[in-house]
Amino acid sequence: MAVNSPLPVATDLKPVAGIEIGFAEAGIKKPNRKDVLVLTLAPTATVSGVFTMNRFCAAPVQIAKAHLAAVRDGAKPIRALMVNTGNANAGTGAVGLALANESCAALAGLLGCEAGQILPFSTGVILEPLPVGKIVAALPQAVADQRADSWFNAAEAIMTTDTQPKAASRMVDIAGHSVTMSGISKGAGMIKPNMATMLGFLAFDAKVAQPVLDALVKHAADRSFNCITIDGDTSTNDSFMLIATGAGTLVVDSVDTPEYAALAAAVTELSLFLAQSIVRDGEGATKFITITVEGGKDVEECRKVAYSIGHSPLVKTAFFASDPNLGRILCAIGYAGVDDLDVDKLNLYLDDVWVAKDGGRNPDYKEEDGQRVMSQSEITVRVKLARGAAEATVYTCDLSHEYVTINADYRS
Amino acid sequence: MAVNSPLPVATDLKPVAGIEIGFAEAGIKKPNRKDVLVLTLAPTATVSGVFTMNRFCAAPVQIAKAHLAAVRDGAKPIRALMVNTGNANAGTGAVGLALANESCAALAGLLGCEAGQILPFSTGVILEPLPVGKIVAALPQAVADQRADSWFNAAEAIMTTDTQPKAASRMVDIAGHSVTMSGISKGAGMIKPNMATMLGFLAFDAKVAQPVLDALVKHAADRSFNCITIDGDTSTNDSFMLIATGAGTLVVDSVDTPEYAALAAAVTELSLFLAQSIVRDGEGATKFITITVEGGKDVEECRKVAYSIGHSPLVKTAFFASDPNLGRILCAIGYAGVDDLDVDKLNLYLDDVWVAKDGGRNPDYKEEDGQRVMSQSEITVRVKLARGAAEATVYTCDLSHEYVTINADYRS
Repeated sequence: MAVNSPLPVATDLKPVAGIEIGFAEAGIKKPNRKDVLVLTLAPTATVSGVFTMNRFCAAPVQIAKAHLAAVRDGAKPIRALMVNTGNANAGTGAVGLALANESCAALAGLLGCEAGQILPFSTGVILEPLPVGKIVAALPQAVADQRADSWFNAAEAIMTTDTQPKAASRMVDIAGHSVTMSGISKGAGMIKPNMATMLGFLAFDAKVAQPVLDALVKHAADRSFNCITIDGDTSTNDSFMLIATGAGTLVVDSVDTPEYAALAAAVTELSLFLAQSIVRDGEGATKFITITVEGGKDVEECRKVAYSIGHSPLVKTAFFASDPNLGRILCAIGYAGVDDLDVDKLNLYLDDVWVAKDGGRNPDYKEEDGQRVMSQSEITVRVKLARGAAEATVYTCDLSHEYVTINADYRS
Repeated sequence: MAVNSPLPVATDLKPVAGIEIGFAEAGIKKPNRKDVLVLTLAPTATVSGVFTMNRFCAAPVQIAKAHLAAVRDGAKPIRALMVNTGNANAGTGAVGLALANESCAALAGLLGCEAGQILPFSTGVILEPLPVGKIVAALPQAVADQRADSWFNAAEAIMTTDTQPKAASRMVDIAGHSVTMSGISKGAGMIKPNMATMLGFLAFDAKVAQPVLDALVKHAADRSFNCITIDGDTSTNDSFMLIATGAGTLVVDSVDTPEYAALAAAVTELSLFLAQSIVRDGEGATKFITITVEGGKDVEECRKVAYSIGHSPLVKTAFFASDPNLGRILCAIGYAGVDDLDVDKLNLYLDDVWVAKDGGRNPDYKEEDGQRVMSQSEITVRVKLARGAAEATVYTCDLSHEYVTINADYRS
């Protein structure tokens, strides 16, 4: 199930010059399923990423961060990214780090580079040992099958409880240069990214200096993967990686250029599409909810209010039921932690319907108007705080029986 | 459904000298259902309470707080408490305040006192106008039927989505004085009290000075109603009221006495029973979970970690499924917001089973041991942070299909 299921899946995914993709069926959790992905990069590529803030961040996250930091300090550039599903290699302590390093070394051996030039990513069950033997055995196949046009396979290879692959391509013209970008993402539960999503990879063929790419990935993540929530659970493995292969003609050396601004806009748009695709395919989701909070003193308090609404099980079940029980939204605003909030100035809209006026029920509000909007599969909640000029938007989904079923059965 | 359903309901509820109870069927939301409750107090009584921290606190909460404050400033003592179900009178602005005051005035007229001597309480749907006419019409019946032994009826009259009434009595001997205490509570969803529960009323027949009672209610709430969560939604109407009728022989004038200590222990024990009863009857609950976090730097961070576990939909669905998918607990600890947490020192136990050792899977942990504990209806999660000497305990329940069903259907 997904909102407006089936979701449109792009079938015209475009190869990005400077990046090749291979995959394999390692049988990590289940047989006959793509579960290992390898992306190899041109020597000209730069890579940057944002990662989970979870203190129990997974072993591969720790290693990927260390390898990226080493590159910034002058080590050899990243040659490949490696992803496995079926096991998160999180909550696994020193043993988990050793196993992740072992998989990096195995891939480095196949590619003739150093282990430090590999970025590992894992997603799946936490607290179970990584079956590194299966992964190492599958890597030669993934490397042998490398192709530039395997983006759809890549999107499939990183799926877990996702019902559909998530991928899209864009071609944009920036200052006379044609830039091709393709991206994939995965994730359907344990989604409340704080620095990134479960997994997202976005590549394009411009040449971008490392500090510029570092700024760009943060810019895009803050406006996409960091604005979504499904169940409020910030995963141990969230990673969003941006790859500039350097194989095209556009060169961006500074953030203070029109080229950077145009590239940032395009990358952010595609990132937002990939992030919203995760919400639309949220575990058990039947509705896609946009929550916009305006008039806050700062963005932080707007996000607090938006997440408070987006995480409330009572609000989410009301959306599932198409029930305009909208007092639950006021309640969630009230406990969002904005201590000096003056509720008498607060206004609440559901799409075009003015529900609460100056902190109370709008005298002109009619239940049937609320009912009409709640029955839609895409709904916008708009809150006006009347405290300042800041605003923030968060994307989420409803909470259905299917969510409980999926998560009560996940390991079986 | 409730944990270990049906819950034991005390049938030997004891009258508390100095308090009389009446109820009525006002038909606020449904006919033929007790939905109005009146508790009248002896002139010797003192009353104190703790209330929701939700900024959208309901009209009756605002009025009850104001009336209690006036008493502390020398106004006439509280004569009666009045409760209605079926409508929360929250998110109702100035109109809601006027309607709540109207109901206070009506009851005051019947009792021959001032409106300021009445404390109003409401619970039910938010954002809908209070049908004050129905309440006012029902009050004479509630006043006419006042009896000392109607505690069970009182517990029934405040139920909403509760499947069972929640009530208990205790008789304790303090310094040679026999003290009788009876209490009731209600609530099954929108439960993450921050200063109190949905509704809890506890009365006893000792004579207690106002400042002492103010300290006592906070002491008891912090160790009971403020340690539970069902869905993380802090209600607009949470109130926990403590009533010392003054009709018995025990007098407590200071917190620095053995009598206060004994009374505080007894009141806290009964409060905890009433609070835990709410969790056991949590919407759709099939399991009762105790989460104890030890070794924190302060109580606040222990509570953060405990609530992070207790609110995680993924942890709660794993409990529902009896699935020892315990990495989800580590994940929730990791995003609890303890920024300098050293996960390599963390240990996790499920009852007597040592699951995670020094941040990773305990090599001696066996899946079947975790499975055995997860299959129980009462489970203790114990986290050792190894950062200090503070600890905290939170009580919660699982997240089941039934929760979604109840909250998707609540208003229909």
